[in-house]
Amino acid sequence: MQRSPFTIMPATQARLMSDFQELATQVMARCETLGTLSQNPQCLDRRYLTEQHKLANQLTSGWMIEAGMTTWQDAVGNIWGRYTSSVPNAPRLILGSHLDTVPNGGKYDGMLGVVSAISIVAMFDGLNIKFPFHIDIVGFCDEEGTRFGTTLLGSRALTGKWQDNWRHLKDETGVSLEQAMQAFGLSFDAVASASINRTDILGYIELHIEQGPVLEQQNLPVGVVSAIAGAKRFNVTVEGMAGHAGTVPMSMRHDALCAAAEMILAVENISQHSHGVVATVGKIDNSPNGVNVISGRTLFSLDIRSEDDELRDNALNKITSRFTDIASERSVNISLEQTHSAPAVHCDKQLKSALVQGVEESGYRTHVLASGAGHDAMAMADICPVAMLFTRCKGGVSHHPAESVTANDVEASLSVLFNTIRRLKHA
Amino acid sequence: MQRSPFTIMPATQARLMSDFQELATQVMARCETLGTLSQNPQCLDRRYLTEQHKLANQLTSGWMIEAGMTTWQDAVGNIWGRYTSSVPNAPRLILGSHLDTVPNGGKYDGMLGVVSAISIVAMFDGLNIKFPFHIDIVGFCDEEGTRFGTTLLGSRALTGKWQDNWRHLKDETGVSLEQAMQAFGLSFDAVASASINRTDILGYIELHIEQGPVLEQQNLPVGVVSAIAGAKRFNVTVEGMAGHAGTVPMSMRHDALCAAAEMILAVENISQHSHGVVATVGKIDNSPNGVNVISGRTLFSLDIRSEDDELRDNALNKITSRFTDIASERSVNISLEQTHSAPAVHCDKQLKSALVQGVEESGYRTHVLASGAGHDAMAMADICPVAMLFTRCKGGVSHHPAESVTANDVEASLSVLFNTIRRLKHA
Repeated sequence: MQRSPFTIMPATQARLMSDFQELATQVMARCETLGTLSQNPQCLDRRYLTEQHKLANQLTSGWMIEAGMTTWQDAVGNIWGRYTSSVPNAPRLILGSHLDTVPNGGKYDGMLGVVSAISIVAMFDGLNIKFPFHIDIVGFCDEEGTRFGTTLLGSRALTGKWQDNWRHLKDETGVSLEQAMQAFGLSFDAVASASINRTDILGYIELHIEQGPVLEQQNLPVGVVSAIAGAKRFNVTVEGMAGHAGTVPMSMRHDALCAAAEMILAVENISQHSHGVVATVGKIDNSPNGVNVISGRTLFSLDIRSEDDELRDNALNKITSRFTDIASERSVNISLEQTHSAPAVHCDKQLKSALVQGVEESGYRTHVLASGAGHDAMAMADICPVAMLFTRCKGGVSHHPAESVTANDVEASLSVLFNTIRRLKHA
Repeated sequence: MQRSPFTIMPATQARLMSDFQELATQVMARCETLGTLSQNPQCLDRRYLTEQHKLANQLTSGWMIEAGMTTWQDAVGNIWGRYTSSVPNAPRLILGSHLDTVPNGGKYDGMLGVVSAISIVAMFDGLNIKFPFHIDIVGFCDEEGTRFGTTLLGSRALTGKWQDNWRHLKDETGVSLEQAMQAFGLSFDAVASASINRTDILGYIELHIEQGPVLEQQNLPVGVVSAIAGAKRFNVTVEGMAGHAGTVPMSMRHDALCAAAEMILAVENISQHSHGVVATVGKIDNSPNGVNVISGRTLFSLDIRSEDDELRDNALNKITSRFTDIASERSVNISLEQTHSAPAVHCDKQLKSALVQGVEESGYRTHVLASGAGHDAMAMADICPVAMLFTRCKGGVSHHPAESVTANDVEASLSVLFNTIRRLKHA
């Protein structure tokens, strides 16, 4: 992650509220339109390198051109637009998010950030506001990773983290990533050319729905992201002793499910008492899982996150130590297998300050919160300063057709983004 | 259940220890032979109305004839042998157990009781010991219920509890019970003729492996059964609120799996503190069951048993009351659906005393224990006094190829059964 090269210009009041309302209507309509491009007629499902990916890129490209931008598709399939700087050889400020969805997904996760950025640029263009840097908008082609099982393919191609062995990743119909790229009109071997020169980039700002209930609870339309939480994941296996539910006295049991239940409650309790940490057992697989059989083996997942890696690891140590005690008290065996580890990504201090000032200038109270979910900004942090603005979403629901934002909250988000960017001045 | 018409004759020491050893060898060999009759070449699996059921009946019938018995197959497919009384129009003492197995089962569960009874009768015959009652041995055709999903078909045909709507029960290949009976050479409509006249029956004694670890812990080869536990079963559904594992703070969660975990521990804790009760959550089904998703709905089973129905229901009330409290504290919904209810069946006092004297006469300490598992004796209790003797089995394991008994424990069981029956005198 790099330090921001920005300084912040003195505030100039932008009296554009009615325009933001119109722009919000446009953004909502465009999210609806993108929401119709689905590989499955029953639900919204738009994955990487499909016909619908191509259509989404074409549609987005058209909106970019309307907004006064020049556009191109890069070697991995991301769609780009440039609002060209008035300065020759200017560096780039990148705005964006992703255009792919999960199966049976919603129409704002990702799309809202791309479409909103285009509308902001259209407003800059309409007001003839020019910048000492290019404003580049990117619609990433794959953030969710639902087609090939690996996330952030679009943004990782930019950051040079693309891996040659991904060539053989297969989708659920057996088509490899290499084959799918070829069918789309791209070449796996050319992806390296999508990587971008980090010395050119001033920063990356992403608008995204919160995907959580905090802003709704705070009664705020937007929130400024402090960091994207680091996560660790484990598969935990508890081995007890299976037995007949009628014939083994309580005192002679080594019930794997009871041991797992005690561990699940320990995860909940320890994370409740570790401020800034969330930990979840979301998956359980019990065996033999019969009504009249004492459980012999229980597997469960553990997902633990925090914006502070040390806090997370302290809580994790308490959890695993408690697991060991429970296993010992119950004479069952336990094993943990780590399946994922990613450190927290902290948002750039200056870009974050700019967003806070943008929020206040737009007339809202600032609430700073961590992102528990992963985003393209995590990958982008490898090559430039990053910042994120969250828009409130109904009930914190995402990855579901019920995903919902209001036009008023989109209006607030556009206002904040506009005020933030217009006050950024390249140092 | 009926009161026993037996009185117990004065003890006469049977000096037959070396014979019991030989008989035990015979019994072990016959269990091995029966263990080879399987519809699946990979494991022991012998279900009702299969070719292997027919072969097991033929084999058993042959051993009965060798033991000096007359044999017949009844209208439901049970195999019978009679060691005829010296008294005209004598009543019947029934010994037996079942000859079917679960899929991937063991070779003692059921079979041991049938084969041991035959060897005891062979000894009576060899010693020319006659009784004022017929000794009838039954090899029940279906106790496990694994083919048609309904247990105790063989014994319930005897007791008049056969139901006409079972005609349409289907096995996993879609063959109905009625069709399978016809293919076997029986007629569904003739099953009523298998029911037996309860005024003729003095009692039913069943030898069975314990299927639990208590006798092993007590270091005893045999135990006398006090009662067969009554059981109730429920499906419990906990409805919480699904959410993203990264974005929903701990304090805002309504995690269905955490609530279920607390309930599972309550089941364990309350039954540990309710002497004579066992309760088990053996099955859990979690949704959406994703590594990074807070659980929205968790289903689990509850099985609770005791030889004392009131004790069981008291513990059950404590459990359901605790469930309600947990659901309320966590703001989740809970619903319980009862799927099974059977009262406890108490063994006959006089037959039980006879078994206790048989145990002591054979030189062992008496341990009385409840049966947590169901047996043919449960059905037979509808028409006559019942009693059961348990044989120790290795690790309490049953319904598994690792099911194991020792020849020494079989010898002890044969001795107890012999001493018990020879001292029974019809009142």
